[in-house]
Amino acid sequence: MEPEEKKYVIGIDLGGTKITTAIADLAGELIEKTTLATGAKEGEEVVMERIIQSVEMVLEASGLMLEEVRAIGIGAPGPLDPETGSIITTPNLPFRNFSLTQPLTRHFGVPAFLDNDGNVAAIGEWLFGAGKGYRNVLYMTVSTGVGGGAVLNGRSYHGSRSNALEIGHMTIEPSSPHQCNCGNHGDVEALCSGTAISKRAMEAIRAGRSTSLTRHEVVTSYEVYQGYKEGDELSIEILTQAWKYLGIAVANLILVFDPDVIAIGGGVSKIGSDMFDAVKASAQDHCFDFMFDSVQIVPTALAQDTGVIGAVALAIVSSQPE
Amino acid sequence: MEPEEKKYVIGIDLGGTKITTAIADLAGELIEKTTLATGAKEGEEVVMERIIQSVEMVLEASGLMLEEVRAIGIGAPGPLDPETGSIITTPNLPFRNFSLTQPLTRHFGVPAFLDNDGNVAAIGEWLFGAGKGYRNVLYMTVSTGVGGGAVLNGRSYHGSRSNALEIGHMTIEPSSPHQCNCGNHGDVEALCSGTAISKRAMEAIRAGRSTSLTRHEVVTSYEVYQGYKEGDELSIEILTQAWKYLGIAVANLILVFDPDVIAIGGGVSKIGSDMFDAVKASAQDHCFDFMFDSVQIVPTALAQDTGVIGAVALAIVSSQPE
Repeated sequence: MEPEEKKYVIGIDLGGTKITTAIADLAGELIEKTTLATGAKEGEEVVMERIIQSVEMVLEASGLMLEEVRAIGIGAPGPLDPETGSIITTPNLPFRNFSLTQPLTRHFGVPAFLDNDGNVAAIGEWLFGAGKGYRNVLYMTVSTGVGGGAVLNGRSYHGSRSNALEIGHMTIEPSSPHQCNCGNHGDVEALCSGTAISKRAMEAIRAGRSTSLTRHEVVTSYEVYQGYKEGDELSIEILTQAWKYLGIAVANLILVFDPDVIAIGGGVSKIGSDMFDAVKASAQDHCFDFMFDSVQIVPTALAQDTGVIGAVALAIVSSQPE
Repeated sequence: MEPEEKKYVIGIDLGGTKITTAIADLAGELIEKTTLATGAKEGEEVVMERIIQSVEMVLEASGLMLEEVRAIGIGAPGPLDPETGSIITTPNLPFRNFSLTQPLTRHFGVPAFLDNDGNVAAIGEWLFGAGKGYRNVLYMTVSTGVGGGAVLNGRSYHGSRSNALEIGHMTIEPSSPHQCNCGNHGDVEALCSGTAISKRAMEAIRAGRSTSLTRHEVVTSYEVYQGYKEGDELSIEILTQAWKYLGIAVANLILVFDPDVIAIGGGVSKIGSDMFDAVKASAQDHCFDFMFDSVQIVPTALAQDTGVIGAVALAIVSSQPE
C-alpha cells in the first residue's frame, strides 16, 4: 500500500500515570481511544511493552488493519531527543536514553515519531484546534507546572536541543520571595502555577489569615477558585496576583514571538473566563497595544484530549512529504 | 544575465541620522561603502531620492555594472511590512505607509527587500558572523534601546506582523520603580539600556550620592563604565544591577528559544568582557544549566558594520531560490 493510501495514524500520550493511545483519521477524528496505567515503577521494558499493547488494543477495537496506518506519534515529557526518538531522562518515567520509536517501528513496521508534550500539544492546536490556519501558534499549559510549545513559520519549533518554550522558568519577578522547584525565584511557575496558588493559600492559612479556605483539608487551585467565586478575600487576592503574573508571561511571549494565537490549556486554565479576562487585561498592560490587538489569547480547543490529539497531529505532520 | 551569474548585492542600513550603503559580493565582503546624512526632516520623497543616490554612488565607486547586482536589501527601524517593503511609521524617519522597495526596483530594475534592523542584524550574524553554520541564532542590541532579531530553523523569523523579538519591552521586574518610554515598569529597556544606565547615574547624582561621576557634564553609560573601572562605588552598583537584569533577559530568551547562539551588539555591549562575564553569570543563575551550557553568548562578529552587512545578508537570502 502506498503511503498516501494509508488513511490513519496512531497517537500516544505518554504520561507518568497513564498512557492514552488513539487511532484517528487524517482529519484528527479519533476512532478508538484507550487508556492504560503507566506503571512507571515496573521499569522501561515493561512500560515499553505496555505502549505496544495499547497500540494493538486500539487497532483491534477499530477494526482497521495495520497496513492502513501511516505513522505513530508519541508525546512524552522531556528532555528528549526527537532525532533518535529517545527520552533522555524525565522525573516520572523510567526511561534513560531509551528510544521509544525504534521498538514501535520494529514491532509494527510503521514509522514512529517522538516529541515533548508541549510541542505535541502546539502541533495539535495548530492542525486541529485554536491555531488552525495560522502560521505562528503558541501553546501554554498552566497546571501543576507551566510549560508550552510552538509552531513557528508553519513548522514545529524545537530549538537547538528540543528544550524550547520552557515558559514556566522565565523569570518575571526576581525580587519575589517565591521559589520554584528549579531553584529560581519569581519565575512563572513559582508565581502562577497550580502549585503556586495552592502554596500561597496554605502559607496564608498557616499565618492565621481569616479565610473560608480553612474548611478544606487540602487547598488546591480549585478550592481557591471556589473561594474567589464566593467572595473570599484571600482567594481573590491570590488569584488576582497569579493572573497578573500570568498576563506578564503572556505579554513577554507576545513581544518576542509576535504570534497569531496563544492557546492556553492545563488544569488551572479550566477556570475559564474569569481567568482569561484577568490574564488578557494584564497582558495588555505589559505589551504594546498594536501587538496585543493582533493576537488571539484563547482556551485550548482540544479540551482533555490535547495530549493524544497532539500525538496524532505529530504523526500526521511528521509522515507528510516536505 | 541569469540571476546566478549576478555576483553582487547592495545593502542599505537606513537610520534616523545616516544612510549607510554598501556593495558586496556573495561572501559578504564589502567592496565599497558610503554614508550620507539621512536629512529626515526633508520628508519622505527627499530621503527616498537620497537612498537611490547612495546606491548609485557605491555602484559607481565599485566600477561594477548594475547588471551584476542580484538584489538590494534594506534594514530600517520598524514597525514595517516586509511583504510590501513599506515602513508603516517610525519615530525618527518621515515615512508613513511608504514602500521603499518599489521605487528602488523601479529605478534599478533589481529586486529589493526590506526588513527591520533587528531581523537584518540577525540574518547578517547568521550568514557571516557569530551564528554562521547554526540553525537558531538570536541577535540582541543593547544601546540607547534594547532590541533584537532571530533566525529560527535556518530562516529569518518575523512573527505574524513583523514585530517579533521586541526584547526591550519584556517585563522582568514589574515592581520596579523604573519606567520605560513605552509606559511599562521594569522592562528590559528600563533596566538595562544605555538610557537606563545614564538615568540611574543622573538620579543618584541629583540625590547627592558621592561619586566620581560628578566631574562629567553629561553621564552616559560610557562614563559609568569608566567609573566602574576606576572603582567608583556608584558606577559599580549601577552596572552590576543593569548586567544582572540583562542576564535575566538572556536567560528568558534561552528558556523560550533554546538557541545555538545569542550574539550581542550595540553601543553598551562594546564594554566587552566585564559586561559579558557578568551577563553570563546572571543568565546561568536564572536558567537550567543544561540549557545555559548549550548556548554561546558572544559579542557580534560584525562590529560597527552589523547594519549594512545585515542588509547585504538580507539581499542574499531573499534573492535565493527557496
